[in-house]
Amino acid sequence: MDLVTFGEAMVRLSPPAGERLDDARRYDAHVGGSELNVAAGAARLGLRARWVSRLPENPVGRLIARRAGEAGVDVSRLLWATGERAGLYFVELGATSVSEAVHYDRANSAMSRLGPGAIDWPGALAGARWFHMSGITPALSATAAAATAEALRAAKQAGLTVSYDVNFRPQLWTAAAARTAQEPLLPHVDVLITSQQDPGVVFGIAGADEVVARTLQERFRCRAVVVTQREPAGSGRRTRSAVALADGTIHRGPRRDVKVVDPIGAGDAFCAGLIASLLRSGDWDAALRSGVALAALKYGVPGDFSAAGSEDLERALQDLEDDR
Amino acid sequence: MDLVTFGEAMVRLSPPAGERLDDARRYDAHVGGSELNVAAGAARLGLRARWVSRLPENPVGRLIARRAGEAGVDVSRLLWATGERAGLYFVELGATSVSEAVHYDRANSAMSRLGPGAIDWPGALAGARWFHMSGITPALSATAAAATAEALRAAKQAGLTVSYDVNFRPQLWTAAAARTAQEPLLPHVDVLITSQQDPGVVFGIAGADEVVARTLQERFRCRAVVVTQREPAGSGRRTRSAVALADGTIHRGPRRDVKVVDPIGAGDAFCAGLIASLLRSGDWDAALRSGVALAALKYGVPGDFSAAGSEDLERALQDLEDDR
Amino acid sequence: MDLVTFGEAMVRLSPPAGERLDDARRYDAHVGGSELNVAAGAARLGLRARWVSRLPENPVGRLIARRAGEAGVDVSRLLWATGERAGLYFVELGATSVSEAVHYDRANSAMSRLGPGAIDWPGALAGARWFHMSGITPALSATAAAATAEALRAAKQAGLTVSYDVNFRPQLWTAAAARTAQEPLLPHVDVLITSQQDPGVVFGIAGADEVVARTLQERFRCRAVVVTQREPAGSGRRTRSAVALADGTIHRGPRRDVKVVDPIGAGDAFCAGLIASLLRSGDWDAALRSGVALAALKYGVPGDFSAAGSEDLERALQDLEDDR
Amino acid sequence: MDLVTFGEAMVRLSPPAGERLDDARRYDAHVGGSELNVAAGAARLGLRARWVSRLPENPVGRLIARRAGEAGVDVSRLLWATGERAGLYFVELGATSVSEAVHYDRANSAMSRLGPGAIDWPGALAGARWFHMSGITPALSATAAAATAEALRAAKQAGLTVSYDVNFRPQLWTAAAARTAQEPLLPHVDVLITSQQDPGVVFGIAGADEVVARTLQERFRCRAVVVTQREPAGSGRRTRSAVALADGTIHRGPRRDVKVVDPIGAGDAFCAGLIASLLRSGDWDAALRSGVALAALKYGVPGDFSAAGSEDLERALQDLEDDR
Amino acid sequence: MDLVTFGEAMVRLSPPAGERLDDARRYDAHVGGSELNVAAGAARLGLRARWVSRLPENPVGRLIARRAGEAGVDVSRLLWATGERAGLYFVELGATSVSEAVHYDRANSAMSRLGPGAIDWPGALAGARWFHMSGITPALSATAAAATAEALRAAKQAGLTVSYDVNFRPQLWTAAAARTAQEPLLPHVDVLITSQQDPGVVFGIAGADEVVARTLQERFRCRAVVVTQREPAGSGRRTRSAVALADGTIHRGPRRDVKVVDPIGAGDAFCAGLIASLLRSGDWDAALRSGVALAALKYGVPGDFSAAGSEDLERALQDLEDDR
Amino acid sequence: MDLVTFGEAMVRLSPPAGERLDDARRYDAHVGGSELNVAAGAARLGLRARWVSRLPENPVGRLIARRAGEAGVDVSRLLWATGERAGLYFVELGATSVSEAVHYDRANSAMSRLGPGAIDWPGALAGARWFHMSGITPALSATAAAATAEALRAAKQAGLTVSYDVNFRPQLWTAAAARTAQEPLLPHVDVLITSQQDPGVVFGIAGADEVVARTLQERFRCRAVVVTQREPAGSGRRTRSAVALADGTIHRGPRRDVKVVDPIGAGDAFCAGLIASLLRSGDWDAALRSGVALAALKYGVPGDFSAAGSEDLERALQDLEDDR
Repeated sequence: MDLVTFGEAMVRLSPPAGERLDDARRYDAHVGGSELNVAAGAARLGLRARWVSRLPENPVGRLIARRAGEAGVDVSRLLWATGERAGLYFVELGATSVSEAVHYDRANSAMSRLGPGAIDWPGALAGARWFHMSGITPALSATAAAATAEALRAAKQAGLTVSYDVNFRPQLWTAAAARTAQEPLLPHVDVLITSQQDPGVVFGIAGADEVVARTLQERFRCRAVVVTQREPAGSGRRTRSAVALADGTIHRGPRRDVKVVDPIGAGDAFCAGLIASLLRSGDWDAALRSGVALAALKYGVPGDFSAAGSEDLERALQDLEDDR
Repeated sequence: MDLVTFGEAMVRLSPPAGERLDDARRYDAHVGGSELNVAAGAARLGLRARWVSRLPENPVGRLIARRAGEAGVDVSRLLWATGERAGLYFVELGATSVSEAVHYDRANSAMSRLGPGAIDWPGALAGARWFHMSGITPALSATAAAATAEALRAAKQAGLTVSYDVNFRPQLWTAAAARTAQEPLLPHVDVLITSQQDPGVVFGIAGADEVVARTLQERFRCRAVVVTQREPAGSGRRTRSAVALADGTIHRGPRRDVKVVDPIGAGDAFCAGLIASLLRSGDWDAALRSGVALAALKYGVPGDFSAAGSEDLERALQDLEDDR
Repeated sequence: MDLVTFGEAMVRLSPPAGERLDDARRYDAHVGGSELNVAAGAARLGLRARWVSRLPENPVGRLIARRAGEAGVDVSRLLWATGERAGLYFVELGATSVSEAVHYDRANSAMSRLGPGAIDWPGALAGARWFHMSGITPALSATAAAATAEALRAAKQAGLTVSYDVNFRPQLWTAAAARTAQEPLLPHVDVLITSQQDPGVVFGIAGADEVVARTLQERFRCRAVVVTQREPAGSGRRTRSAVALADGTIHRGPRRDVKVVDPIGAGDAFCAGLIASLLRSGDWDAALRSGVALAALKYGVPGDFSAAGSEDLERALQDLEDDR
Repeated sequence: MDLVTFGEAMVRLSPPAGERLDDARRYDAHVGGSELNVAAGAARLGLRARWVSRLPENPVGRLIARRAGEAGVDVSRLLWATGERAGLYFVELGATSVSEAVHYDRANSAMSRLGPGAIDWPGALAGARWFHMSGITPALSATAAAATAEALRAAKQAGLTVSYDVNFRPQLWTAAAARTAQEPLLPHVDVLITSQQDPGVVFGIAGADEVVARTLQERFRCRAVVVTQREPAGSGRRTRSAVALADGTIHRGPRRDVKVVDPIGAGDAFCAGLIASLLRSGDWDAALRSGVALAALKYGVPGDFSAAGSEDLERALQDLEDDR
Repeated sequence: MDLVTFGEAMVRLSPPAGERLDDARRYDAHVGGSELNVAAGAARLGLRARWVSRLPENPVGRLIARRAGEAGVDVSRLLWATGERAGLYFVELGATSVSEAVHYDRANSAMSRLGPGAIDWPGALAGARWFHMSGITPALSATAAAATAEALRAAKQAGLTVSYDVNFRPQLWTAAAARTAQEPLLPHVDVLITSQQDPGVVFGIAGADEVVARTLQERFRCRAVVVTQREPAGSGRRTRSAVALADGTIHRGPRRDVKVVDPIGAGDAFCAGLIASLLRSGDWDAALRSGVALAALKYGVPGDFSAAGSEDLERALQDLEDDR
Repeated sequence: MDLVTFGEAMVRLSPPAGERLDDARRYDAHVGGSELNVAAGAARLGLRARWVSRLPENPVGRLIARRAGEAGVDVSRLLWATGERAGLYFVELGATSVSEAVHYDRANSAMSRLGPGAIDWPGALAGARWFHMSGITPALSATAAAATAEALRAAKQAGLTVSYDVNFRPQLWTAAAARTAQEPLLPHVDVLITSQQDPGVVFGIAGADEVVARTLQERFRCRAVVVTQREPAGSGRRTRSAVALADGTIHRGPRRDVKVVDPIGAGDAFCAGLIASLLRSGDWDAALRSGVALAALKYGVPGDFSAAGSEDLERALQDLEDDR
C-alpha cells in the first residue's frame, strides 16, 4: 500500500444534468465521500490505495464497496455492520441556479457509529507510507471523533506521513465543536490542508493565505500547511489554486480556470494529486502543480471520483507549462 | 371528495429491470405507500381522492407530493415538516431470483413523527364518503398509532365508510404489538381487508378463509370482511382472488392468473378497485370482480400505482366474463 | 428494382415497453405503414425495393424518409409536399392489458391528399417486377382511392405482378365503403391477400378459408388468393399460418407459435416473405413457408419493420423443417 | 384559487439535446402551452392555480392533464372531448444552429373547437383573485375568439384582476386579424403584457418601450402595461428585462443575462413571477424583479414549465440584489 | 487468495434487449471471458479470487481491469502491453430468433500474444488454494498454448487443486488441434469439467455421461470429472444439470429449468459455484448443487458475470430443496 | 449520381458526453469515415451521392451500410467480404481534458485488403459528375494504395472532377511514405484540399497559406488548391476558415468561431459544402462560404456526419452575411 484513507462514503443520487431533484424520474447512482475520493483519485494515478470505513451489509453498502473496487481501491479492510444504514445524498447539478444544490440524508449511518477499537490499525496500515483523512470523520459523531484520534495516533506510530483536510461541514457540527474536537488532533498531522475560509471560521485565524498558513503551522506544529483557493470565475466556471508553507518556504501553485461539469470532489482530487506527487518526488512545487491540475480535471467529469490517469495528468501538467 | 386515505409514502428506487441493486448505475424513482397507492388507483378510475400525510419540506418530500398530484390525487391537506426526512426503499425486480428483493431505509420519517392533533380532520374529511387506511400507519411509531386512532374516530364521526387493510409488516413491529395496538382500532372499521396469512399471525385466527372472515367479523363487529388470496402461480406468475363476508353472505371473487412485471402495490390496487365499485353500486360481487381485476392489471405495470383507467378496468372485467 | 410499393407511412410513438402512453416521459420514434413495411422487409432480405408515397417537407416527413433509407428502401420517387402534415400513431405495448393499444392521429396527412396524376408511374415502375399495395391507401380519402386505381392500372400495364392486401381498417372507412371502392380495383390484382375476417366483413364472403379463397378468386379473377391466419395462442403469444389458392390448388403454410414482443407489422412481414420467395422461385409452398416464417420473426422485434435478413430467414425455415 | 388561466396546451416532443428532429430515435415528451405554463409556474411558487381548457379524451389529452396535476395545477374544470385531437409540437434545441427550431402540428385541436357557452365561468372563477390568458387563444379559431371574449367578461364581472399577454403568433393568424379580434377584448384587461415587437406589428404602435406602454394604456384604458425585453446576448445566452407603466409611473425591472438550456416558456415564467408578486404585495418594482428572475431561471431547465420554487426565487432575487 | 484463474477477457457489446446488432444506436458494454467470469462469480460469493491475464494499456484494456475490480477480483498480477488490442465480441439477445447471436472480433488480442516466461507464477499463485482455466486459452495461439502448459505445471508444483473446463471453441481451432494440444495438458488437471458434447467432438469419447466421465478419468488420470448438461427447455428457457465422477462414485446434480435473460457465462457460473463449494466443504453432492444453482441464477442477469452473493445462493439452494 | 466517394468507414463507439471510455457502461454507436462523411454531408444537402467501399458481411459491416442508407447515400456499389472485420474507433468527448481522445482499432479491416481490379469503376462512376477521396485510403495498405491509383485514373477517364483531401494520418503511415505514395497520385487531382499543417509535414512545403497553395498547384498541376484553417478559439470552441487558389486567384473564406460539441467530421463537412456549392454554381467564393458554414454547423452535432440540410445551410450563410 502507498496510501491509506479513513472516512465515510455515501451513495449519491443525481438526476440527469439540468433536471430538478423533485421532477426527476431517475437518479444516477454515484458513490462519494471525501476520503474515499482521495483514495480513488490516487489509485487512478497508479498508487496502491486502501480505504478504511464501516458499511452496512446491505445492497447500499455493497454498492459503495463495489464502486471503490472498480476505482482500483483496496477494500479488504472494510468493517461490515448488520442492520444499519449507509448515508445518502442528493445532488442537483446546474438546474435553475448556477450553484449546485445538495441535500443530505446521512444521519445514523454505519460509519457514524464506528468507535475506537473496532479497526485493526496495525494491520490496516502495514506497509503503507501515507495516511489521509479529513475533518468530516470526527464531525460524524462522538465515537467517530474518538476513532479519528485513534487512527491518527496509530498512523504516526506506524511512521506514516499524515495529511488532514479540515473540510469544515456546518451541517454536521458547529465551528466551536469543530475547534474543540480538532485542536487535540492536529498535532498528529504532518500536512494540514485547508480552504481559505475554514481557518477563520473554525480556529479564528484569518488574514492573507500565507499568514494563515504560518499561524496554523506554528499553532499545530505541522510540517506543512496547504491553503487551497477556489473562486467562482463567472457563470459555470471556477478558478482553483493553492499555496503551501513547507520547509519554511511559501510555494505557490498555478492558477487554473475551468468549466464546471460537476464540482463535487475537486478538493479531494487536489489532495490525491498532491499526495501522489509528494510520494513520488517530495518536491512541493511539483506537488501543488499536480494537485491543482487534478482538481481542475475533476470539474469536467460527473461523479465524485477523479477520473484522470497518470497520462491525463501529464498532459494537463504540460498544458500548465504551455500557459505560462 | 369521494375517498380520503391516510398513511406514509416513500420514494422507491429501483434499478432497471433485471439489474441488481448493488450493480446498478441508476435507479428509477417511483413513489409508493399503501394508502397513497389506494388513492392513486381510485383517482385513475375517476374518483376524487385525497391523501393525507406528513412530508419533509425538501426535494424528496416534494417529489412525493408531485407524483401524487400527477396521479390526480388531491394533496391540499398534506402537512409539511422542516428538517426531517422521508423514507426510501429499494426494490430489485426479477434479478437472479424469482421473488423481488426489497430493502427499506424508512426509520425516523416525517410521517412516523406525526402525532394526534396535527391534522384538521373535520376539514380534511369534509364532503368525503369513504376513509381508508392500513395497519402500516400505526406500526410506524407510538405517535402514529395515536394519530391512527384519532383519524378512525373522526372518520366514523363524520359518517364515512371506513376501510382498513391489516397489512402486517414484520419489519416494523412484532405480531404481539400489532395485536395490542390494533384491537382497539378495529371496532371503528366498516370494511376490514386482510391477507390469508395475517389473521393467523396477528390475531391468532386461522382456518379456511370463510371461517377466518366470520371470526374476524364477530370479534371486531365489522360490517364486512375481505380476505385476499395471492398465490405464486409458477415462475414469474401470480394468482389472485378474494373472498368477502358481507351482508351475512360469503361472496367469492374471480381467480386471475397474471404475469408479474412489478408486484408491488397489487394489494392496494385491489382496495382501490373494491372501494371504487362499492362507492358506485354497493354490490359486493361486482366489488370483488373490480378489486381482483385491478390487482391483476397492476402486476403488469412498473411502479406502485395502479395505472388502469375505467376503460381498462371495463375491458378487464369483460375478459373475466369471457373466461367463464 | 424488384418490388415497388405504394402507401402511407407514419411516425409511430411508443413509450418504453410496459409503460402507459399517458404516463410516459419519452416515446421511441419508429416509422411504419403497411406498404413501407413490406418494402423494408423485402429490402432486408436483399431485394431492391422502392416505396412511393407523399410526405410533408418538414422534420416529421424527413424522419420517415430517412428510416426508409436506413432500411435499404429506395426513396427516390417520393413526392414532397409543403405546409402539410404526416400522420402519427401512438402504440402502447403490453402495459396493463395483454393486447396492444393503438391511438391514431392521422387525419389530413399529405398522403391522404394525393390524387391521380401526381406520380410518374412509368418512371416509378421502370424495370420493376412486382407491385404491392394494401386496402389502407384507398381508405385514406377519395383522391387516394382514385390514385390507387391509377397505380394498379399502371402496374398491370407495365407487366408487373400485382399483389393487394385487403387490410380493412374500420377506423378509416365503413365496410360498405370498402366494398364499393375496392370491387372495381381487385380485377387488376394478381395475388390477393386477406385475413380470415375481412372477406366476411367487407365482401360478405364467409366460410372455411379454402372456400373463401375460392369465392374471392372467382369473383375477382385473381391468379392467387392468400388467406392469413392469426390466433392468440395464450397470454403474450400468437399463432400464425396461411393458406393459398394458386394454380388451382390449395397450399397450406406451416403453423408458427411465437412470443409477442411487438405484433405490429407482422402481416406486412408475411407479405414481404411471400413476395420475396415468389420472385425467386415461384413455388407457392416455399412462399407460404417464407411468409409465415418472416411474420413469426417480426413478432420478436420492436418497430414495424421486419429485421430479418436472408440468413435469419434461412435459419427460421430450417427450424420449420426441424419441427415436423 | 388564487389564479385561473385559460388556453390551449399541447404535447411537446423534443429529441435529446443536440440531436436533430429527423435523426432522433426517441423524443422526450413535455407538455406546454402559454396559459398552462403560467399556472404551473405560479403553482410551483405556492399559489393555488387552476387551468381551464378543452382536451380530447384520449392518451394524449390525459397526458396533458396528468402533467398539469404533477405541476400542482388544479384540473378539475377541464372539458373533455370525444373523438378529437390535441395539438403537438416538435422542438429541436441547439442542434446545428444557435436558435431553436419549432415545428407545430396543432391544427384542429380540441381547444380550437371550443366555443362560448361551454364553460361554467362563474363556477370556474369562484373564489379566485386573478385571471390570465394570452393572445394565442383567440388566434386558434373564430369560436375560440368568441370564448375568449366570454371569459374576459366573466372574469371582470366576477371582480378578478385580468392580465393578458399579447403573444402574437404569425403561424396562427395575420397581424390584421390579430388587431381586429383583440381590440374589442383589451378594454376588459387590467394588466396588459407584451413583447417589444408585438405592439408595432399588431397595433402599429412603435417607439421606445415607455412610449409604447403609454400609448397602449391610453388606447385600451388598461390599469397597467408591461413591456418585456428579450435580446440575444451572444451565442447560447439571452438577456431579459421588462418595463411597466403602472399607477402613472414607469417601473424598470432588472436586466438578467443567462445561459439558454431551453428558452421555451420563459415569457410565461415572467408572467407567473409577476402575477405571484402582485398578488402578494402589489408592489410593481418587486413584481418586475420577480418576473425577470423567474424568466431567467426558466432558461436553465428543460421543458415549458418554470421549475423554480419560492426558495429558488428568493435566492435568485438575492442574487439580483448582489449584482447591483 | 483462494482462487487464481488465467485466461482472456474481452469487451462485450450488446444492443438493448430485443434489438438487432445492425439496427442498434447504442451498445451496453460488459466484460467477459471464461476464466475472469469464474473469478468474478467466486468473488461475489465471498472468495478471494485473482485473475491473471494480459491486457493492452489503452482504454479498452483498462475498462476490462476496472470491471474485474468492481466485481471484487484481484487484478494486481495483470500484464500490461503497449500498442496491442483487446478482443471484442458482439452479442444479440433474443432478437428475431430464439438463440443468441454472437459475433467475435478477437483476433490478435494482447492475451493471444502472451507466451511462456511472461508471468511470475510463483508470485501469482502464492498462498492460493485452487487454480482454474479453460480450453479457450490454449486455443488462442501457439504461444498461449505454451503459456497454458507452463501455468498448469506451476499450479501443480505449488500444490494447488487444478480445474480445467474443456470449453471447445470451433471458431478458434479445429477439434484435431484441440486434441493434440490438450492431451499433454490434462494429466496436470485434478478436476476436469466438460459439456456433454465436447468429449465426443474433441477426444472421440461418446456415450452416456457416466461412461464419458469414466473414460476421461481413465485416460487423463484426473481426480474428478464433471459433465455439465444443458438442454433447451422450450422457447426462452433452458434446463441445466451436471454429473460428477469423484472418489470413484457418480454424483448427480439437481436439474433446474430457468428463464433465459442472458445465457452467456452460465457455464462459468457453474464452475464458480462448484469450486466455491469444494473449497468450503469438499462435498461433491453439495458442490454440484451449488454449481447448478449458480448457473441457473446466472441466466437471469445481463452480462457475463454471476451476480449472486452467498445469500442469494443459499436461498436458491433452499428452493432446490423445496422442489423435491 | 452527382458525387461518388471512395474510402473506409468504421463503427465509432463513444460513451455518453463527459464520461470516460474506461468508465462507461454503454457506448453510442455512430458510423464514420472521411469519404463516407463527405457523401453523407452532400446527400443531406440534396445531392445524389454514392459511397464505394469494402465491408465485411457481418453485423458490424451491415450497421455501416444501414447508416449510410439512412443518410441518403447510395450503397448499391459496396463490396461485401466474408470472414473479415470492419475497423472500430473509440471517441471520448470532453471528459477530463479539452481535446477529444480517439483510440483506433482498425488494423486488418476489409477495406484495407481491397486491391485494384475489385471494383467496376465504369459502372460505379456512370452518370456521376464529381469524385472525391482522401489520403486515408492509400494509407490503409499497399493494395489500397494501388486501388486508389486505379480509382483516380478511372474517374479522370470518365470525365469527373476529382477532389482529394490530403488528410495525413500519422497513426497509419510515415510522412515519407505518404509523400512517396501520393506524389504520383496528385496529378490526377483537380481540386486538392489540405490542412495548413499537412503540406509541410508530408511534402516539405511550408509558408503562408497562399504560398503553400501556389507551390502545391505548381508542383501537382491541380486546377485548384484549398487550404483549410482550424484554430482552437479557447476552451471548448474552434475557429474555422479556408483559402482557395482557383482560376489563378486567391479566394478567402469567412471565419467562423463555434462551440464544439463533436469536432469529428468537420473537415469532411467542409468538403461536402464546398463540392455541393461548386456543383451548383462553380463560384469559388460561394463554395468557400458553403464549406466553412457546413463545417461550423457540424461542430454542433454528435456523430461524424453533417446533419445540416439545405435550409440549415441557407440560414447559416445568411448569418455569415449578417456578421459582416
